[in-house]
Amino acid sequence: MNKKKQISVCFSPDLFHYYNKENLIVVVVDILRATTVISTAFEYGIKSVIPVETLEEALSYKEKENYIIAAERNTKIIEGFNFGNSPHHYMNKDIKEKELVLTTTNGTKAIHKAKENILITASYINIDAVKRYLIQEQKDIVILCSGWKNRFNLEDSIFAGDLATLILDSNKYISNCDSLSASQTLLRSAQSDLFRFLENSAYRKRNQSVEVIKDTKFCLNPTITSNIIPFFINGRLEKRII
Amino acid sequence: MNKKKQISVCFSPDLFHYYNKENLIVVVVDILRATTVISTAFEYGIKSVIPVETLEEALSYKEKENYIIAAERNTKIIEGFNFGNSPHHYMNKDIKEKELVLTTTNGTKAIHKAKENILITASYINIDAVKRYLIQEQKDIVILCSGWKNRFNLEDSIFAGDLATLILDSNKYISNCDSLSASQTLLRSAQSDLFRFLENSAYRKRNQSVEVIKDTKFCLNPTITSNIIPFFINGRLEKRII
Repeated sequence: MNKKKQISVCFSPDLFHYYNKENLIVVVVDILRATTVISTAFEYGIKSVIPVETLEEALSYKEKENYIIAAERNTKIIEGFNFGNSPHHYMNKDIKEKELVLTTTNGTKAIHKAKENILITASYINIDAVKRYLIQEQKDIVILCSGWKNRFNLEDSIFAGDLATLILDSNKYISNCDSLSASQTLLRSAQSDLFRFLENSAYRKRNQSVEVIKDTKFCLNPTITSNIIPFFINGRLEKRII
Repeated sequence: MNKKKQISVCFSPDLFHYYNKENLIVVVVDILRATTVISTAFEYGIKSVIPVETLEEALSYKEKENYIIAAERNTKIIEGFNFGNSPHHYMNKDIKEKELVLTTTNGTKAIHKAKENILITASYINIDAVKRYLIQEQKDIVILCSGWKNRFNLEDSIFAGDLATLILDSNKYISNCDSLSASQTLLRSAQSDLFRFLENSAYRKRNQSVEVIKDTKFCLNPTITSNIIPFFINGRLEKRII
């Protein structure tokens, strides 16, 4: 009989080194909105996503053929970029077979903190595929919440509680992680109406625009599902269908 | 009319620099057990507490008159030290007017991270005094959870939720902090039976000894209260009665 594997939740990219170890799968979460954008773009046919840390690096791809560049800072699209951080920008057949270069406030930074591991990204769009993959792989797991500028945020933690519960229900994993327990408690308090629970979250207080509210509803309760898991390999997220 | 001040919760000493700013009061929490020990020792007459980071530094006080040295690592008392990290060690008239040199896994480290600020320590023993002091001072507040080796822990977060709720109820403070909201949600889930809620916490799984269980019950629901607030001034915690 296989020994059960560990699952943990890490609340900030800056704490990731305390959770890091050999032979780990890291699941990066930035539910509002980067990892939802990534799932959406793959579902609409993007070939790969290159998460970069700086605007300068993203801009260096601007003139290259077949590349789309997208940037968000403090929830706003940046001048000079084709796309921002709204999943609705990517529900668009023009993105098919293109490469997306993406830099966001939190999500792309989290990816770079953990990129020496097997690294995938998760959102409510691909949560079932991610669950299936993780249960099948049987490796230790860290769900890495991107947070907000390295601080804890509610939305990523609640998603982590949701995904962790699905994994633990398989009985193939155990947890000894207070962040995971807290995420599950937050989920239980939030799940009857996640959008409403997040009403007083820092994200919602920062983002009162019609566009972001529409995006938030989509990210929490998307109208599409995807069997695609983005894997970070050689500097880019590539798709694998599960 | 005074502008309302901000209150935030920080889940790990390693994230404190993101919350740090001018003119701040930092409330250090290590409910199981360092800040409860500190409250207990003051209530039983200790003159001051010197939190030090290393065992070597603590041992350097061993031969000095009027000093007690206490150390804990991974919940165990260390050989060569007079006291450990159990509040029950300090319910003892022999500690009166002595100086306590204390090094613990988490709490003393949190103090050192934030010591450039006005810094006090809080526990369920002095929570009412801390509340009165903070409401009266009207400065920005960060409740700094010591956590477990820089990771999030449940017990400090729940205490933070309790203290933050008392402060916010005064209507003199506002919060825009997801960690604080999460702490309040955890508190609401836990408060009917805090000891039981923490049954699956990492702390309790690590600590199954009769002594630690007795200590835990005391720390969560102490049989003493104290009007003493420990202030960190010039390298030591000194008492001020509120």
